[in-house]
Amino acid sequence: MSPRRHADATVALAQELVSRPSVTPEDAGCQPLLAERLSALGFRIHNLRFGDVDNLWAIRGETGPLFCFAGHTDVVPTGDESAWQHPPFAAEIHADILFGRGTADMKGSIAAMVTACERFLADTPTPPFRLAFLITSDEEGRATDGTVKVVDWLKTQGERIDWCLVGEPSSKHRLADEYKIGRRGSITGNLVIRGKQGHVAYPHLADNPVHRAAPFLAELTAIEWDQGNTHFPPSTLQVANIQAGTGANNVIPGTLNIQFNLRFNTETTVDSIKERVTALLAKHGLNYSLDWQLSGAPFLTESAALVQAVERAVGTIIGSTPAASTAGGTSDGRFIAPTGAQVVELGPLNATIHQIDEQVPTEHLITLSTIYERILQELRTA
Amino acid sequence: MSPRRHADATVALAQELVSRPSVTPEDAGCQPLLAERLSALGFRIHNLRFGDVDNLWAIRGETGPLFCFAGHTDVVPTGDESAWQHPPFAAEIHADILFGRGTADMKGSIAAMVTACERFLADTPTPPFRLAFLITSDEEGRATDGTVKVVDWLKTQGERIDWCLVGEPSSKHRLADEYKIGRRGSITGNLVIRGKQGHVAYPHLADNPVHRAAPFLAELTAIEWDQGNTHFPPSTLQVANIQAGTGANNVIPGTLNIQFNLRFNTETTVDSIKERVTALLAKHGLNYSLDWQLSGAPFLTESAALVQAVERAVGTIIGSTPAASTAGGTSDGRFIAPTGAQVVELGPLNATIHQIDEQVPTEHLITLSTIYERILQELRTA
Repeated sequence: MSPRRHADATVALAQELVSRPSVTPEDAGCQPLLAERLSALGFRIHNLRFGDVDNLWAIRGETGPLFCFAGHTDVVPTGDESAWQHPPFAAEIHADILFGRGTADMKGSIAAMVTACERFLADTPTPPFRLAFLITSDEEGRATDGTVKVVDWLKTQGERIDWCLVGEPSSKHRLADEYKIGRRGSITGNLVIRGKQGHVAYPHLADNPVHRAAPFLAELTAIEWDQGNTHFPPSTLQVANIQAGTGANNVIPGTLNIQFNLRFNTETTVDSIKERVTALLAKHGLNYSLDWQLSGAPFLTESAALVQAVERAVGTIIGSTPAASTAGGTSDGRFIAPTGAQVVELGPLNATIHQIDEQVPTEHLITLSTIYERILQELRTA
Repeated sequence: MSPRRHADATVALAQELVSRPSVTPEDAGCQPLLAERLSALGFRIHNLRFGDVDNLWAIRGETGPLFCFAGHTDVVPTGDESAWQHPPFAAEIHADILFGRGTADMKGSIAAMVTACERFLADTPTPPFRLAFLITSDEEGRATDGTVKVVDWLKTQGERIDWCLVGEPSSKHRLADEYKIGRRGSITGNLVIRGKQGHVAYPHLADNPVHRAAPFLAELTAIEWDQGNTHFPPSTLQVANIQAGTGANNVIPGTLNIQFNLRFNTETTVDSIKERVTALLAKHGLNYSLDWQLSGAPFLTESAALVQAVERAVGTIIGSTPAASTAGGTSDGRFIAPTGAQVVELGPLNATIHQIDEQVPTEHLITLSTIYERILQELRTA
């Protein structure tokens, strides 16, 4: 059963998307709906399915720089639905607030992108740049068959994005008070320190990996990776998990497992992180194995045409310049930025994302669509 | 079904005891058998049941110092009985070797104690000292309702042991090559370091207890507790278990659990251990809770009448002086020594204890009984 459609086109499209229960990695019919709307605007549609993930690449125009709206149709699970005051997939509107899973993260943004394009192209049928949508249903999950695969595919097509606007909910207290011009990178180290198991009564016959590793751990957690810079706080390392021992109080453990994660900025490279950790392990003479998982390198889009367009657009529509931020976790921007694209993230309030009764004021969706439209207008003269 | 009884009285009694499946804390009829034999020698029998544990206190004589044989009738579990070449409770003898659970730890010793008394008292019906047996069925298990409770009960009776011979399997390569004149103490610390859980992307909002504790842990594991002494190696601390983290790589853990155990000698006191650890926790400004479990304080019986009697007896029977040792884990001697008793431990080879096909040569049991008898004879002139 579809919700009663709002009179505004952006809110109505958001309702249609929210009513599709696209819990990651399901798309649940969101992308076909978007494809239909974009196709009508002259976009060429590419449905790219990798593994069990649906991805949509839609592109319009033949020449000029390429502007891309990027986003995801998948949502995080609802948890206990009975805990919701308004059912997560009912897309109900109460007192001018749209409720439901994905309203803020980030079906509302996607609706605003589509309607912004519709108005912009009605006004400017042949803009001096090309337009595209990169939509995945694997952002909230493993993120292995989504944007990262589409980016690979684009490379094989010889296609390169110049300007990318990701619709992640970037606003903190007021709509568009903040937008993101970069993100920290994230890398995880899975470290195993090897010793020799034995009885605590005979420590000379054993080799306690916890004892071996303790001075290393003290140094590792005290490293100053960098000082940060204008846009990023200093890089940080956190030990997320540590475990050794059989549970018995008379057995010296044979191995110690340590998992640590770094959130790092553009002052620190992946290679320098690996080198420092490896050098410290060597300094302490540890017998170890270490396995690295890179979730994403950091990126920063600074003083570029897209940044100026966003700041001018928000200034015009809202009346104040948004603060440029690099805080928070990772987003699919990490996959797009390394191709050389300028990447920014601008979307609704993030206060209720991943929570019960996730919500967004209908007025914010309408305004967001206007801001997106204005950004496209600004880029006509870029 | 009873095993075919050996011609020697010590071996035959050991067989009778081994054939009773007294897996801790069961006594399975061992103590009634011992009570019957001791009663016949003029011992007064006290059956002391605490919780689900049977204890036997048997005492003979009215005046003079009190010599006590101490031991346990309970045995450790057999594990998979089909893995045994000789069934654990069959008490079979093959090629002059007695097989079965408890043959070495320590029903063989108990049999030797009883037959030693029988011969000694036949020869010396009124020795210048009193004789006792302290037998429990809770040494291999929790050890809370066994010897420790009997010792408490003896205090209420105004009774005090002067000389105590524990029958734990002390021999290493040859029968009576080593005996124990003391044991290290054992204490366990269960430490919880408290921080504040959070997301690794926002470390300023959290407080990682692993990071807080790392320098503390490095210092704790590097402490030199003492230098040891003539009889004891230096005291040692070992971290047996350490754990923090939810398993996820993006969550800063809220608490860190560390369990450590110390084996400590007579140069270091329980109080000094607690003080040093507490001071170190304070120095590092840690928010913690710490729960101590004292398994036993260290003890040492040096240059005393009992030590001389044992060394002379072994020298006479075996032809060489046994080495005085304090190595290894804990024994019930830890409960008896604090009452002021001289405590030594002398028993068969420990090579097969707690293993499948636990065994003892029949000749060793016969010789051990002779050594025990000789110790009593030596003490006549102490």
